[in-house]
Amino acid sequence: MKSIAVIYGGTRPNGNTETLTKLAIKGLEADSIYLNEFNILPIEDKRHAEEGFSNVGDDYNDILTRMMQHDVFLFATPIYWYSMSGKMKNFIDRWSQTMKEPQFKGFKENMSKKRAYVIAVGGDSPYIKGLPLIQQFKYIFDFFGLSFEGYIIGEANRPGDIYKDEKAFYAAEQLRETLNLSSMNEL
Amino acid sequence: MKSIAVIYGGTRPNGNTETLTKLAIKGLEADSIYLNEFNILPIEDKRHAEEGFSNVGDDYNDILTRMMQHDVFLFATPIYWYSMSGKMKNFIDRWSQTMKEPQFKGFKENMSKKRAYVIAVGGDSPYIKGLPLIQQFKYIFDFFGLSFEGYIIGEANRPGDIYKDEKAFYAAEQLRETLNLSSMNEL
Amino acid sequence: MKSIAVIYGGTRPNGNTETLTKLAIKGLEADSIYLNEFNILPIEDKRHAEEGFSNVGDDYNDILTRMMQHDVFLFATPIYWYSMSGKMKNFIDRWSQTMKEPQFKGFKENMSKKRAYVIAVGGDSPYIKGLPLIQQFKYIFDFFGLSFEGYIIGEANRPGDIYKDEKAFYAAEQLRETLNLSSMNEL
Amino acid sequence: MKSIAVIYGGTRPNGNTETLTKLAIKGLEADSIYLNEFNILPIEDKRHAEEGFSNVGDDYNDILTRMMQHDVFLFATPIYWYSMSGKMKNFIDRWSQTMKEPQFKGFKENMSKKRAYVIAVGGDSPYIKGLPLIQQFKYIFDFFGLSFEGYIIGEANRPGDIYKDEKAFYAAEQLRETLNLSSMNEL
Repeated sequence: MKSIAVIYGGTRPNGNTETLTKLAIKGLEADSIYLNEFNILPIEDKRHAEEGFSNVGDDYNDILTRMMQHDVFLFATPIYWYSMSGKMKNFIDRWSQTMKEPQFKGFKENMSKKRAYVIAVGGDSPYIKGLPLIQQFKYIFDFFGLSFEGYIIGEANRPGDIYKDEKAFYAAEQLRETLNLSSMNEL
Repeated sequence: MKSIAVIYGGTRPNGNTETLTKLAIKGLEADSIYLNEFNILPIEDKRHAEEGFSNVGDDYNDILTRMMQHDVFLFATPIYWYSMSGKMKNFIDRWSQTMKEPQFKGFKENMSKKRAYVIAVGGDSPYIKGLPLIQQFKYIFDFFGLSFEGYIIGEANRPGDIYKDEKAFYAAEQLRETLNLSSMNEL
Repeated sequence: MKSIAVIYGGTRPNGNTETLTKLAIKGLEADSIYLNEFNILPIEDKRHAEEGFSNVGDDYNDILTRMMQHDVFLFATPIYWYSMSGKMKNFIDRWSQTMKEPQFKGFKENMSKKRAYVIAVGGDSPYIKGLPLIQQFKYIFDFFGLSFEGYIIGEANRPGDIYKDEKAFYAAEQLRETLNLSSMNEL
Repeated sequence: MKSIAVIYGGTRPNGNTETLTKLAIKGLEADSIYLNEFNILPIEDKRHAEEGFSNVGDDYNDILTRMMQHDVFLFATPIYWYSMSGKMKNFIDRWSQTMKEPQFKGFKENMSKKRAYVIAVGGDSPYIKGLPLIQQFKYIFDFFGLSFEGYIIGEANRPGDIYKDEKAFYAAEQLRETLNLSSMNEL
C-alpha cells in the first residue's frame, strides 16, 4: 500500500494551509510531520570541506528517516514572501547534506521512487505570485527524478480565509480521491 | 552619499557567491553582513495571534537595524535548491514580524526608499533554473515599492568555479561602476 | 450589464480549449470571436517609422472594435509550444499599432477598465509548462492596468481529452457562476 | 565545421535585436534568415484531422529546410508583449506540422543534434519580464532534446537604444568568441 507523509511548513497552528491539506487527506492514513515542532537547523555548506558535514545534533535526521518510510509526499507550506516558509526551506536545504552521508546511502535513488504533491496557500495573488515557487518545486523534484503529481494553490490571508477559496477546496477533494485510489490500487 | 549594505546568505567562507560579490564592491565602502555569523530564528507566524509577536531574543533586530541604515542593498545568496539559502529566507521571513513591531514603525515606507540588487550563484543551470528566484525577489521588492535595480546570476559549483564565469565577472565589474557613480552622485 | 467577449485562439474546430471555454459561458450571453475565421496579419513594427503604421487592410480593426464593446474578456487559447497560438499572438501584437492610431484614441485607458480571464489548454504538462504563459498574460494586463481576474489551465492532447480533466471542468463551472453573478450585479 | 543559422523574428529593419545579434556573429559565417521577408502562415492544427496537414504553399518549408542545414541556431527576437514576435511564433508553431510530414522524417531527432541560443531585446524591464520567454524557449528546446546553450537579454526601446546596454553588448561579444571557437574546433 502506498503510504503518505505530509510535511507541514507552517508556523501557526490550524493555519489555512493546514486546513486545506487536512481536507486533502481526510479519512486517509497519513503521517503528519509538523516541521514547526522540531528543531531543524539551516544547513552549513560543508560539501567541499575536508572534514565533511558534521552531525549537528538536531531533529533533522529523524524527520528525514520518518519521511522516507513513505511513498507519497505532500509538501504543505504557507507562502511566505512568495516562497516556501523558512522552516521548510531549512529542511529541504539539508537534503544536500543527506546526499553526502553514508547512513543515507541511496538517498537520491530512493527519492526517485517517490511521488510528490505541493499545497501552497498565500494572501497576495498566490495564483500568479506563487508560480515561481511551483517551478522551484518542479526543479527540486526533477533533480531526484521524483514524480511531481500535482499542486494546489490556495488564496487566504487571515485565519479561516481559505474556506472562501472554493476552487482550492474542490482541488483538495479531488486530490483526496486520487490519493485514496492510489492507496487502494497498490496493496 | 548613498551607502551600501551587502547581505550575505552563504554558509561557506569564501564561497563563490562571496567572491563574485566582493568584486562588485571592490574599493567601495560597504557594510558586509554575513547572516551566517548571527543567530536568526525562523519566523513564528503570530500576525493573527492575540498576544502578537514576542521578542525571540536573537540577533535579527540588530541586523535589520544595521541594514536599514543604508540606502542600497545587495542580497548575495548561493542558490540552494533553486532558491535563496535557508539562512537568507529566515531573515526575510522575519520582515513580516518587523512590519507589526512598534519599534520599526514606518518600516514599509522606509523600505520603499531603498534600492536593491541580487547576486545569486548556483551550480545547476542557474541561468535557467535560477529565474524563479529572481522573480520572487521582484515580488518581494514590489511589495515594498523598493526599486529592483538589477541582478547577476553566476554559475559555479565547486570552490573557485566562479572564476570561469566571465559573463558574471563582467556584470560584477559593471555593477561596481554603477555603485561607484551612484555613491559619488549623491553627496 | 457587464458583457462578455470570448477571444478564441484555436485553429481546430471544437478543440479542447473551445470545449472547456464553452462550459464556462454556458447559458450566458457572450460574443464569441474566433480569430481563426479572420485575416489578421502579424504586426510590422512601424512605431518609430516616419510614416507611422499603415492601414494593412485586414480584419484586425473590426475585431478589435468588436472586442472593445465588451467589459469582460476571456482569452481562450490552446497552448502551442508552451505559449499562446500564433493567431492569438498576431492579434495581441497588433495592440502596439492600435496604441498609435488616432481612431483608437484612449485605447490604453479603455483597456484599463476591462477585466480578463485566460483559459489555456495544453498536452505537455500544462500545469507546469503553461505557467510562463500565464505570467506573460499578467504582464500584458498589467501594462494596461487591466484586472486579471483568473485563469484556468486544462490538460488535453487528443480531441476530447479535456473531458478527463475534472479539475479544469470544475474551474470552468465556477467561472461560469462568477461571470453570471457579475453580469447580474451590474444592470 | 559547425555552421550557424540566425533566425530573425524582428519586423523593423536594423532594429535593436538585429544590431545586438550582428555583433554576436561579426566576422563569422552565418546564414541570416529574416522571417519578415517571407510569407509564413500561422499553423492550422490538423494533427488530428483525417486528411492531415495540407501544403499551404507559403515559404515555410523552404525556410525550415534552410535552417536545418546548420548546426547552431540563434533565435533573435524583439520582445513583443513579453514574448517572441508573432512572426517567430508562427514559424515555431509550424514545427508541429513538420513533425507529421513524411518529407521531414527524422525532424525531431535531427533537432536533438542542434545547439541553440536566444537573443531577445525588449523595452519594458526585459531582465525581469522577459524571463517567461526564456523559460518557454527552454521547454521548446527540451522537447527536442536540443541543447540550450545560452541567452542574451537586451534592454532597448527606441531605435539605437541597445547601444546603451553595455552588459548585453559584452554578452554578445562573449557569444561571438564562443561561436568562433566552436566553429574552429570542429572541422
